[in-house]
Amino acid sequence: MQIAAPYLLFLGNTPHRLDAKTASGILDWRPELCAGQCRLDADTVDLGLPDMTPEAAAAAGMRTLVIGVATFGGALDEAWIDTLLAAIHAGLDIASGMHARLGENPRIAAAARQAGVRLFDVRHADAHFDVGSGRKRSGRRMLMVGVDCAVGKKYAALAIHRAFVRRGMAADFRATGQTGILIAGAGIAIDAVVADFAAGAAEALSPDNEPGHWDVIEGQGSLFHPAYAGVSLALLHGSQPDALVLCHDPHRTHIDGYPDYPLPTLAACIAANEQAARLTNPAARCIAVALNTHGMSESQRADAFARAYAETGLVVFDPIATGADAVVDTLLAETRELAQASPHTPGDHP
Amino acid sequence: MQIAAPYLLFLGNTPHRLDAKTASGILDWRPELCAGQCRLDADTVDLGLPDMTPEAAAAAGMRTLVIGVATFGGALDEAWIDTLLAAIHAGLDIASGMHARLGENPRIAAAARQAGVRLFDVRHADAHFDVGSGRKRSGRRMLMVGVDCAVGKKYAALAIHRAFVRRGMAADFRATGQTGILIAGAGIAIDAVVADFAAGAAEALSPDNEPGHWDVIEGQGSLFHPAYAGVSLALLHGSQPDALVLCHDPHRTHIDGYPDYPLPTLAACIAANEQAARLTNPAARCIAVALNTHGMSESQRADAFARAYAETGLVVFDPIATGADAVVDTLLAETRELAQASPHTPGDHP
Repeated sequence: MQIAAPYLLFLGNTPHRLDAKTASGILDWRPELCAGQCRLDADTVDLGLPDMTPEAAAAAGMRTLVIGVATFGGALDEAWIDTLLAAIHAGLDIASGMHARLGENPRIAAAARQAGVRLFDVRHADAHFDVGSGRKRSGRRMLMVGVDCAVGKKYAALAIHRAFVRRGMAADFRATGQTGILIAGAGIAIDAVVADFAAGAAEALSPDNEPGHWDVIEGQGSLFHPAYAGVSLALLHGSQPDALVLCHDPHRTHIDGYPDYPLPTLAACIAANEQAARLTNPAARCIAVALNTHGMSESQRADAFARAYAETGLVVFDPIATGADAVVDTLLAETRELAQASPHTPGDHP
Repeated sequence: MQIAAPYLLFLGNTPHRLDAKTASGILDWRPELCAGQCRLDADTVDLGLPDMTPEAAAAAGMRTLVIGVATFGGALDEAWIDTLLAAIHAGLDIASGMHARLGENPRIAAAARQAGVRLFDVRHADAHFDVGSGRKRSGRRMLMVGVDCAVGKKYAALAIHRAFVRRGMAADFRATGQTGILIAGAGIAIDAVVADFAAGAAEALSPDNEPGHWDVIEGQGSLFHPAYAGVSLALLHGSQPDALVLCHDPHRTHIDGYPDYPLPTLAACIAANEQAARLTNPAARCIAVALNTHGMSESQRADAFARAYAETGLVVFDPIATGADAVVDTLLAETRELAQASPHTPGDHP
């Protein structure tokens, strides 16, 4: 599955910027994919892209209308249908991260069939996956792991990927959730895979690659989450990460929505993830801590960084506030040290 | 879902007893549910039950034809269809643990709809499950955990359940795989649940119960299995077990089918499972080791028991060779000691 760009970002009729988080995420991380926005009325949130009808977007060479707003309950809004049908008739594919499948709407399904366009329901994982093989793959992999859900794993992976690319290093961002998939144009909603095949799906997501290539893999859940730890473990085993990045939101005091479940310490979280990861990659180790310091003052952020460093001894970064250059610098410095220590070993390091 | 008894065990046309493992398992553990067998020819394996046509079985009050044989590839055998249709026309439900769904055969689907009988595809989990809540439930739970897949977890759980029942204690066997479900008449194929909902499904499988009641839960996979550990972890968290039973096959030297994955030691396996289980039940602890000593001589079995005891210090049993009375005796003795130590605490112990 590869969603075709350029995208027309569909913002529906929502006046709230927070409801347009998917569209903002795509625009923040892949501005080069976003060629226009489609808003149903004047009050609709404005991302600053050229306003276009689906017909105009298709005529201008755009390929996919991406539904960039969330609805309460995750269903299609009736007020959107005519615009989506117009997009289909104009030849645009439609991509959605909603719970409800696009094809569940009979008019949309029929129109897409007739027009020969594709409907992408990225929250669902319809592909067939093999069970995990545990076979070691070539290339290198970095996986985000979390103290909890929704602590910034996607943004950490995107920032690290951006830092790799800036240095001209071969790297791919591998998306494991719906917004990440819309940002990357590809990926697997790992938590939507049947449990038996989740590790196998994670293996398929980051296939064999060049020795110096890094896959930077978006994480899901947390080993300390009473509902989602199984997903996290399957992703950890299937990803075979060489490097882990622990993601944390310092505002969080317990597992979000589970007041009886206190957060683990960063040290305990690193230990549990490293131990589990070493089943499929004995060299796995945590190399950095990503903090979501949104809303903190400079001095609060400095305190949070200092606390995380004191607890872990690792590089600390904020994907938004500082970017992830320090993570890639650390990897490169280690590689140089390794190369100096054993100059005659070719190794697979970049 | 509750499959209605009595069962007519359908043996198809297989001459090999091993292919009839599902039927033998049901007969071994639930003879009271099995009222007849249906064999397509004289060479078909004979379980010693009365031979009956579907029509005769229905007339005798049987409720469900259970497909008790495995086929290569897990699909319906064309030679069975007429007999299955006859069963449907006679008013019997059909239950199957095969990969292929019964309803994928259009003649079977149409006949079942017309006759108003139910088709149970127990390998599939079609029910809606909530995500795990992590909420502590009443009653007590015991979960089988494995060094690997297929080491005797189902038989261990069935033997322990039988030992509880023999002592007149309130207990249920909770099935998590297809054969277990056919034996129990109910359950959830936990590895067929979408990963996000696997822990929630495990919670639904062993709901709140009386304080002295034990749910004895069939395990799945192993935390040390590169493909299935996520399923095992979700089941561990959702089950909230008070007691774990470690299941092992002493013949096994590596993860079955994964020669690069050595087996963990019993001690490492207990430590990893206890640590993970304590997220949702801080009192979780391993209380016994189940060994599959099939094919061993008495002295080999005694050696295997002695080694497992030396490594773990726990009660060791074989579900078939010794039964599980020792496990229940140990639990009862501990409960008595606890009651003597604190005579004024009512507690929830039987």
